Amino acid sequence: MSLTHFDETGAARMVDVAAKPVTQRTAVAEATVRCQPATLDLILAGDGKKGDVRQVARIAGIQAAKNTGSLIPLCHPLPLDGVTVDFTSQPPDRLTVTAAVTCTGRTGVEMEALCAASVAALTVYDMVKAVDRGMTIEAVRLLRKTGGRSGDWRRPADGGAADQS
Amino acid sequence: MSLTHFDETGAARMVDVAAKPVTQRTAVAEATVRCQPATLDLILAGDGKKGDVRQVARIAGIQAAKNTGSLIPLCHPLPLDGVTVDFTSQPPDRLTVTAAVTCTGRTGVEMEALCAASVAALTVYDMVKAVDRGMTIEAVRLLRKTGGRSGDWRRPADGGAADQS
Amino acid sequence: MSLTHFDETGAARMVDVAAKPVTQRTAVAEATVRCQPATLDLILAGDGKKGDVRQVARIAGIQAAKNTGSLIPLCHPLPLDGVTVDFTSQPPDRLTVTAAVTCTGRTGVEMEALCAASVAALTVYDMVKAVDRGMTIEAVRLLRKTGGRSGDWRRPADGGAADQS
Amino acid sequence: MSLTHFDETGAARMVDVAAKPVTQRTAVAEATVRCQPATLDLILAGDGKKGDVRQVARIAGIQAAKNTGSLIPLCHPLPLDGVTVDFTSQPPDRLTVTAAVTCTGRTGVEMEALCAASVAALTVYDMVKAVDRGMTIEAVRLLRKTGGRSGDWRRPADGGAADQS
Amino acid sequence: MSLTHFDETGAARMVDVAAKPVTQRTAVAEATVRCQPATLDLILAGDGKKGDVRQVARIAGIQAAKNTGSLIPLCHPLPLDGVTVDFTSQPPDRLTVTAAVTCTGRTGVEMEALCAASVAALTVYDMVKAVDRGMTIEAVRLLRKTGGRSGDWRRPADGGAADQS
Amino acid sequence: MSLTHFDETGAARMVDVAAKPVTQRTAVAEATVRCQPATLDLILAGDGKKGDVRQVARIAGIQAAKNTGSLIPLCHPLPLDGVTVDFTSQPPDRLTVTAAVTCTGRTGVEMEALCAASVAALTVYDMVKAVDRGMTIEAVRLLRKTGGRSGDWRRPADGGAADQS
Repeated sequence: MSLTHFDETGAARMVDVAAKPVTQRTAVAEATVRCQPATLDLILAGDGKKGDVRQVARIAGIQAAKNTGSLIPLCHPLPLDGVTVDFTSQPPDRLTVTAAVTCTGRTGVEMEALCAASVAALTVYDMVKAVDRGMTIEAVRLLRKTGGRSGDWRRPADGGAADQS
Repeated sequence: MSLTHFDETGAARMVDVAAKPVTQRTAVAEATVRCQPATLDLILAGDGKKGDVRQVARIAGIQAAKNTGSLIPLCHPLPLDGVTVDFTSQPPDRLTVTAAVTCTGRTGVEMEALCAASVAALTVYDMVKAVDRGMTIEAVRLLRKTGGRSGDWRRPADGGAADQS
Repeated sequence: MSLTHFDETGAARMVDVAAKPVTQRTAVAEATVRCQPATLDLILAGDGKKGDVRQVARIAGIQAAKNTGSLIPLCHPLPLDGVTVDFTSQPPDRLTVTAAVTCTGRTGVEMEALCAASVAALTVYDMVKAVDRGMTIEAVRLLRKTGGRSGDWRRPADGGAADQS
Repeated sequence: MSLTHFDETGAARMVDVAAKPVTQRTAVAEATVRCQPATLDLILAGDGKKGDVRQVARIAGIQAAKNTGSLIPLCHPLPLDGVTVDFTSQPPDRLTVTAAVTCTGRTGVEMEALCAASVAALTVYDMVKAVDRGMTIEAVRLLRKTGGRSGDWRRPADGGAADQS
Repeated sequence: MSLTHFDETGAARMVDVAAKPVTQRTAVAEATVRCQPATLDLILAGDGKKGDVRQVARIAGIQAAKNTGSLIPLCHPLPLDGVTVDFTSQPPDRLTVTAAVTCTGRTGVEMEALCAASVAALTVYDMVKAVDRGMTIEAVRLLRKTGGRSGDWRRPADGGAADQS
Repeated sequence: MSLTHFDETGAARMVDVAAKPVTQRTAVAEATVRCQPATLDLILAGDGKKGDVRQVARIAGIQAAKNTGSLIPLCHPLPLDGVTVDFTSQPPDRLTVTAAVTCTGRTGVEMEALCAASVAALTVYDMVKAVDRGMTIEAVRLLRKTGGRSGDWRRPADGGAADQS
């Protein structure tokens, strides 16, 4: 078993995708922030005059998706078609960021979705760290993807090795 | 309880730190990648001719630390003094990235350490995703920080709400 | 009436353009710098040994057009086909920057043209601010666009609400 | 009269500020968006479920302030201390963005404040352009600055050449 | 004879390539680092525990290729298909970086290959400069290109004016 | 002999400079472009209506100096004090770019000067490549540096190993 990101001598490379067809691609990823219950209340109270952590984090996530080609060394720069970043809460102590990315291109957008979810979650951390420095971002993971030669993929419902948390 | 990243009207802001003293700052953060045992073997075999996933991820993490001010909207741009990104494995299925950042400045470098660890872990994911798409990045978290008005902080050994994974 | 940059819950998003056809797009925008007459003379004298403010500003504008996808949060990153930035003067006290952008893509390049004109005008300001700090950039506006579903658009000659200055 | 951004041969340069003292700097700039009255209503309605244009524009402005050193070719990269971006409306047809920047450094932050105000205004334009393509950004201008060798400056109340709009 | 990067008035522009067909493009460029023999030994010893200068430089070169559109003012931003950066040594005192770039687009990737080779070579310099500050990067040059209207090109074997070093 | 950019296990790192004093730093580097005599004439004719390659290249070089911390993976981000990029010609076939950088900081600016000279030379190549694709950038090298613990350094007049071209 070998990794396509390296050639036979072990040199890293940005894999040549010139021969791959241009197809529609989608990917959805999530990141969960675990925090103190009072912190979650504070985040969810953000609709009013207190300022909404989620709106700032959403913009950071969208920008990160577009910036993936420079964040992740062997990723291809891609002209993304769309990015959404949404939040759901699992009281008393979890906030989940879900990022969805679409593209018409020669390679998938899993990394774009994962970067968007991660950076949105890090931005949440940044904005509330003064009151809850011990917050953890957990379960940054791909939920599903469509398009491309490797076809569609969906995270198994039972979790599997990477899904037990 | 309110968040310093918002003013009294709820507007997000980059908090003015002009009145804070310039002091030495350090922060250490980690991110753990959970994968299939065969994937971990593949990553750890990287010393030889197969290419080392960790060396690529380390560079990505260091670059991300320097780029934190543009990734995280309300973070201050900081002239970092040093960044290290290291890896340890917890067989059979975990690889941990530990990032340490130092700075002489008016604000802390927690976000720089967290960004470095996160982006290094995402880069690991990118390089092995073709063989293990279900990998999860879990427990992105601050381990300790020193310097600044809020003083030193160390993650409690017992974990606490944010530390139970 | 609602804005396409938000979904039904009010969340900002980068609108999905995957279903839109790839077509030729053009956009032309302008920005006018109003300054002291002596400042305009200084800018226009730039052909000789004194250094040409406009040449520096032109490069800044072209670079800004290419950078629009990271400057404007909900803009799509676009592989631009061409960018020009030109200057005309309206003595005694105005210099106008005109930026034209072309692209073959799924979404328009109005923002690219506006960013190019704005950043070129800001660069002019930067270079002469030491002698005329009170300069104003006024009338940053779209002049025309072609291509795309919304079709061609041309600023009304009479100005209209947005054109009375 | 000559411009410090050029040397005696007319070559552009980033002026050497090594000999200037490190002092506290502030700058405040504004940009006004003129739009249809219905557009202004739409922008101001953004507190509720419709999505708030201003919150997105605020983040774009803060990011632009930090990015000024790469947007404006001869600007120095500066470790900013603080950035705020605020909005006021002048019904029936104007929205004003006010950006304030602080820094402890060897050179002023006028360009940072102007870039923040401009990019925030451009982001407002981007988000409502589908309903009001004729919007104009007018009167991008410095309101005041403090610190540095050239001392404090405040835009004259009567306007003057650059202030008559 | 005139340069396409300027219009008839001498204004720089990003040339409009909208009318050019989308074709497969490749370019290969190289940069040679000349150093002390002991320095070359140090670089080549990098497979073991000492750390491999080439692996870091390779990542820097790949990132630079992707970043060419912002490094070189009049270059088009291009969605690259692939990038490789490789090293060969010519003992006792030379290390050559060879960068190959592929793209499906309207304009060539010569600059991407040259930027990758240059930045990789500069990164080698950075990592060993403490022991050999006098190193020189010489012969940064295009080796060959394919695709596009100007057709294929290959550096003459005899060198020619630009090839005598 | 070992390299400071790697720790004892061979891991790359951004070396911690927190303990180093803040001092004045300067560095001067050059890059020489070798071209056809007719190409050099074309470049040098750029004062008039034909457009000046050097002015565009100068801006690219200044921007590259500021961007060095993201181009070169293990470089520290530095708040530069000043950057100049100048050109001299050695007829019939050489144009030399000389970049000078100053900074008040904990680490030197050699890489900033080398990046500025290299990117300026690459920009020259880009602008004239349509008429002279075989151009070579040769002798990218440090001329001198001052400041810092390693003290002043000046390239030996006789050239030495790295200076024989």
